[in-house]
Amino acid sequence: MASPNELQASSVAPDRLERFIRAAFLALGLPDADAATVARLMAEADLQGSDGHGVIRLPQYARRILAGGINTRPAIRVVQERPGMALLDGDNGMGHLVMRRAAVMAVEKARTTGIAWVGARWSNHAGPASLYARMPLAHGMIGLYFAVGNANHMPAWGGLDMLLSTNPIAAAVPSGDEPPIVLDMASTVAAYGKVKALAARGEMMPEGWMIDRAGQPLTDPKRAEEGFLLPLGGMQAGYKGYGLAMLIGILAGTLNGAAMGSDVIDFNHDDGSATNTGQAVCAIDVQAFGDVAAFKSRIDTLVRELRASERIPGVQRIWMPGEQSHQRRIAYARDGIPLSPKLLDDLGRLAQQLGIASLQETSHA
Amino acid sequence: MASPNELQASSVAPDRLERFIRAAFLALGLPDADAATVARLMAEADLQGSDGHGVIRLPQYARRILAGGINTRPAIRVVQERPGMALLDGDNGMGHLVMRRAAVMAVEKARTTGIAWVGARWSNHAGPASLYARMPLAHGMIGLYFAVGNANHMPAWGGLDMLLSTNPIAAAVPSGDEPPIVLDMASTVAAYGKVKALAARGEMMPEGWMIDRAGQPLTDPKRAEEGFLLPLGGMQAGYKGYGLAMLIGILAGTLNGAAMGSDVIDFNHDDGSATNTGQAVCAIDVQAFGDVAAFKSRIDTLVRELRASERIPGVQRIWMPGEQSHQRRIAYARDGIPLSPKLLDDLGRLAQQLGIASLQETSHA
Repeated sequence: MASPNELQASSVAPDRLERFIRAAFLALGLPDADAATVARLMAEADLQGSDGHGVIRLPQYARRILAGGINTRPAIRVVQERPGMALLDGDNGMGHLVMRRAAVMAVEKARTTGIAWVGARWSNHAGPASLYARMPLAHGMIGLYFAVGNANHMPAWGGLDMLLSTNPIAAAVPSGDEPPIVLDMASTVAAYGKVKALAARGEMMPEGWMIDRAGQPLTDPKRAEEGFLLPLGGMQAGYKGYGLAMLIGILAGTLNGAAMGSDVIDFNHDDGSATNTGQAVCAIDVQAFGDVAAFKSRIDTLVRELRASERIPGVQRIWMPGEQSHQRRIAYARDGIPLSPKLLDDLGRLAQQLGIASLQETSHA
Repeated sequence: MASPNELQASSVAPDRLERFIRAAFLALGLPDADAATVARLMAEADLQGSDGHGVIRLPQYARRILAGGINTRPAIRVVQERPGMALLDGDNGMGHLVMRRAAVMAVEKARTTGIAWVGARWSNHAGPASLYARMPLAHGMIGLYFAVGNANHMPAWGGLDMLLSTNPIAAAVPSGDEPPIVLDMASTVAAYGKVKALAARGEMMPEGWMIDRAGQPLTDPKRAEEGFLLPLGGMQAGYKGYGLAMLIGILAGTLNGAAMGSDVIDFNHDDGSATNTGQAVCAIDVQAFGDVAAFKSRIDTLVRELRASERIPGVQRIWMPGEQSHQRRIAYARDGIPLSPKLLDDLGRLAQQLGIASLQETSHA
């Protein structure tokens, strides 16, 4: 699962990356503690190999902050609350701050109620969905996460107007000796980032990722603007992915009073407007259902029997959801996080613009 | 979306069907109130067009009860409880009774906590997932439902040992003037019932539903036992459906101490063993998040903008999840529920065996 960026990449130590990101957000006007939180979460995204959702987003975040599209000093507040839920108004702050707070609240509440759900409106892009689904893990809890994507790339099933995003769902399940099970998936066949990556490399997409406005397969990623992503299930069962995208969008967006459907701002083409991004975290306390150690042992058993399964000829290994990220995290912590030359250039220009030390000049811990 | 069974079908009034099912369960030894509850839910399944999960299952349920595989006098009890959750032990009773109780509890708890989750173990097949996801609707709540299927038809992604079922997820979202949004989907490309229906009609499956043990497309449904269902996403993105099936199975099965993986009993080939079926219902109280009428109006707006979308050439109409079931419910309530000659024969034989009036002889209300 080597990312194309790794081919000629330079490796950067995770803590150096985190310091650099922190310096950037300080320069952009975030309070110290907030800059540190966002930097830690963004570096964690890169560390687990979510390279479309980590530091690669920093130039875009900076552009949005400089255009007034993100509030650097948000007063994140609870606007609705019950014992098992809360609704946050993110005051248009960085999504990482809003959703970290949501996850912390969900865990605290779930300790008492057994399950808790914290949604947010007026949030922003928060990085990879799995970051927040994983937060309850350390507390012996299952985490779920839902988000409305920040650009509509998909119509209703059978439609042409792009009214739905790649709305992701993530889930994390605590385990014993095995790595936790971590699912993080867009409700489309392919995420839009994969299309952009192929376009950059001049390669074609496989049939089934996108169709054009006549309903025909679209395989040239340079023509991506002429078509749209197919929902999970593809031509055959895409109505299921369409249903999932709608459900996730309702849970994360509509329920919270956040953007969904035609309200969604395309943050790739609009730096200045508040996105009113909606997300939600749910924490389920395993202890409420019985002994946590027994549960973790059942998960380990399940993982091992799936992994030990006889395989289709040619398949080298059966992977659990999240297992490849887990291995990447170990490898990158040891060897550094690979960043492409283009990304290093972009970050170099950003450092100059913000008047901070470049990534290469940033001190190692 | 006419079911093949409708082609030469006789129509039966919903209340007559319900009375017949109730008489069957009384004859099988269920207490009167329980027989009435199961009959109401099974008839409701047929009324909404879930014809693979309604009265068609009655002969199988009867067989299991007569073989001692289902407990007709269960003491369903709460084994774990917190303000926002409960875990039920279904005492191997009919799944409909267990999951109806779970949904009622979830709604009651969510009124206070904002969200509540009730899981079950030692339950049984409970009919279509949407039945229980829909129960919170009348209380202004969103319903979610998760279940472990009662037969493993799918391996891990890349594997050959069938360790996963078609584990379904269902969700229901209250609306205003529009029908509620009701999603009910297996985590496979096609449900196994569809394969069996094609086999019965001597038709072939489209490529993408199943593969054989060499990883090649399997299109002859009569060879279904030689292969397995592909997870949602198919050959291209089936690892996503695999992840979903695993997650749903963990939430509904492993978390509750119910069967998952190799523990799952194939109830098509084993009438006598308790299945230890696991399911879960979650209720989310919309009122906790804000004004319910405003939410319903936002859902109506979303539905209308999706439906009004420009369409791919040849597409007649854009459907919302659950909208076709909604229309079927109206039509069947008016015209009767179509039952195939084969099903009528099966039910006739069952009536004789149980010594009850046949469906045709059952009094109309």
